Amino acid sequence: MTVNRRWTLAARPVGEPTESDFVLEEAPVPQPAEGEVLVRTRWLSLDPYMRGRMSEARSYARPVQLGEVMTGEVVGEVVESRSSAFTPGQLVACRAGWQEYGALPGHQLRRVDPAVAPAQTALHVLGMTGLTAYFGLYDVCRPVPGDTVVVSAASGAVGQVVGQLAKLAGCRTVGIAGSPEKVGDLREYGYDAGIDYRREDVAAALREHCPRGVDVYFDNVGGDLSSAVHGRLAQGARIAVCGQIANYNDAVPAGPAGDLRFLIVARARIEGFLVSDYARRFEPALTRLTAWVAEGRLRYREDVVEGIEHAPRAFIGLFRGENRGKLLVKVGA
Amino acid sequence: MTVNRRWTLAARPVGEPTESDFVLEEAPVPQPAEGEVLVRTRWLSLDPYMRGRMSEARSYARPVQLGEVMTGEVVGEVVESRSSAFTPGQLVACRAGWQEYGALPGHQLRRVDPAVAPAQTALHVLGMTGLTAYFGLYDVCRPVPGDTVVVSAASGAVGQVVGQLAKLAGCRTVGIAGSPEKVGDLREYGYDAGIDYRREDVAAALREHCPRGVDVYFDNVGGDLSSAVHGRLAQGARIAVCGQIANYNDAVPAGPAGDLRFLIVARARIEGFLVSDYARRFEPALTRLTAWVAEGRLRYREDVVEGIEHAPRAFIGLFRGENRGKLLVKVGA
Repeated sequence: MTVNRRWTLAARPVGEPTESDFVLEEAPVPQPAEGEVLVRTRWLSLDPYMRGRMSEARSYARPVQLGEVMTGEVVGEVVESRSSAFTPGQLVACRAGWQEYGALPGHQLRRVDPAVAPAQTALHVLGMTGLTAYFGLYDVCRPVPGDTVVVSAASGAVGQVVGQLAKLAGCRTVGIAGSPEKVGDLREYGYDAGIDYRREDVAAALREHCPRGVDVYFDNVGGDLSSAVHGRLAQGARIAVCGQIANYNDAVPAGPAGDLRFLIVARARIEGFLVSDYARRFEPALTRLTAWVAEGRLRYREDVVEGIEHAPRAFIGLFRGENRGKLLVKVGA
Repeated sequence: MTVNRRWTLAARPVGEPTESDFVLEEAPVPQPAEGEVLVRTRWLSLDPYMRGRMSEARSYARPVQLGEVMTGEVVGEVVESRSSAFTPGQLVACRAGWQEYGALPGHQLRRVDPAVAPAQTALHVLGMTGLTAYFGLYDVCRPVPGDTVVVSAASGAVGQVVGQLAKLAGCRTVGIAGSPEKVGDLREYGYDAGIDYRREDVAAALREHCPRGVDVYFDNVGGDLSSAVHGRLAQGARIAVCGQIANYNDAVPAGPAGDLRFLIVARARIEGFLVSDYARRFEPALTRLTAWVAEGRLRYREDVVEGIEHAPRAFIGLFRGENRGKLLVKVGA
């Protein structure tokens, strides 16, 4: 325990990121200052939003600087503590980034109880992606029993939770994914129907599976896929814009805003949201999500890559739809 | 009074409508049936939404059929009544269409009192466009005092009302219009600043006039102009999609919905609405609008074309920005 392997940002990508945009460095293990905790990473979460942090464009968070460790949330073990709130051996979640060791102030750490569920679930169903699904669906979309809920990237980290939460709310659910295997997984995630957008005519499939139109659309993707859903909205439809992965590799935002007449025709609403805005309500939401996982009412699938050295390649695969479930890197022994 | 001149739909336009899409017919003056009222048109309202009715595409209202009289609202005089609720000489507003005479059931007529304001205001500030501004701004956008409100087509029939309603609500107002004359009119409509989108860099002008971002955008236009506003949203911005005149002549809705990342960055909301959905609340809204007009707090400008024979040419001019204020056709003596 003397060397800390870490991925820093080497170049700002143009279009799709490449492995050469990252560099694997060896640095000394950081020394925790007074009030800080040294955490050894066990699990690193890889998420599409990180693409935005690699660009300089104005966004909701500060970009990663060149030479800086890539940002990201991890679950790790406390190895040394100079905070009275933590002791070695405890498991915590924190934003240590793409590295084997991080020293962070105690107040930035969240305790993880592995007795409740596997520790790494704090990075997905019982963490950011679960909360994103929860607030995006329940708060932004306000589903009503009987609503038809359509979800893009339905087998992804957020989408797999949205389908099940929508079923709990009494909705009919239609998931869109990009391979027969992923579409096959959808039933497990509470979807009543699945559409393979790479092999099916999405507009025709939506007509078949949403005969009364789409009341709620949870949009993780954007692009042409979303346009097909926009053409099938029911009156009073609500759309949560959670992600736009189809556009993340575009250098500049696409030109015209598109034709929004469909919103008038359907008297529909599109709303963007960020899970961090709901921070004061995380605790009660996590209590419910945890109970649903414990009761077997909320399932999840992880796609685990072994070894921090593979993080960039796995991350790039997100934009090609290569992951099947929540993408995690298992770090260390 | 034996001949009824009327404009019917001769062809479905591809792109911008042309005069040959309409045909001026002479027909007998209709005979009112029991319960109906014969109305002689004095004023015909011309509005961008009529372009949608000329197409067969699915929308919120049935298209005009080929050979059918063009749809539209008029203010006219009762010349014969077989309804106990109306007597000859009264002024009414109704959807008689582009013709000199219409026979309509009494329940489809609304009384107009010329003592309150000029009768034709029932076609704009005290009618559909005023109500569109009222509900689109107050209900959809929910302005808060201090908000910066941006309006496209700000000197048009709806836009000229929105600016003044936003000032009444304590907002700062920025109008976008398409000529120096129109921008000059904006001050009269309560705008604190004006932008000429044909002669100025809209993005740069928005940075200047909206230093803290755009809290509310009342969108009558769509297209590139709206993209510039989308790039300048404040956190929690609200956008009402009232019209998309920039797109109305597109044969098919534009391909992709555009990149909606800006909605996530700003946690913003875009909502389409139709004034007809607020019908049960028209009366109290009209009471307020009428009082504001009477007190001189709500001004308007009309662009009057004389003679029903000029209706198609004037209508086509709407899509070229040729009107200066609410476009009306004065019909008959």
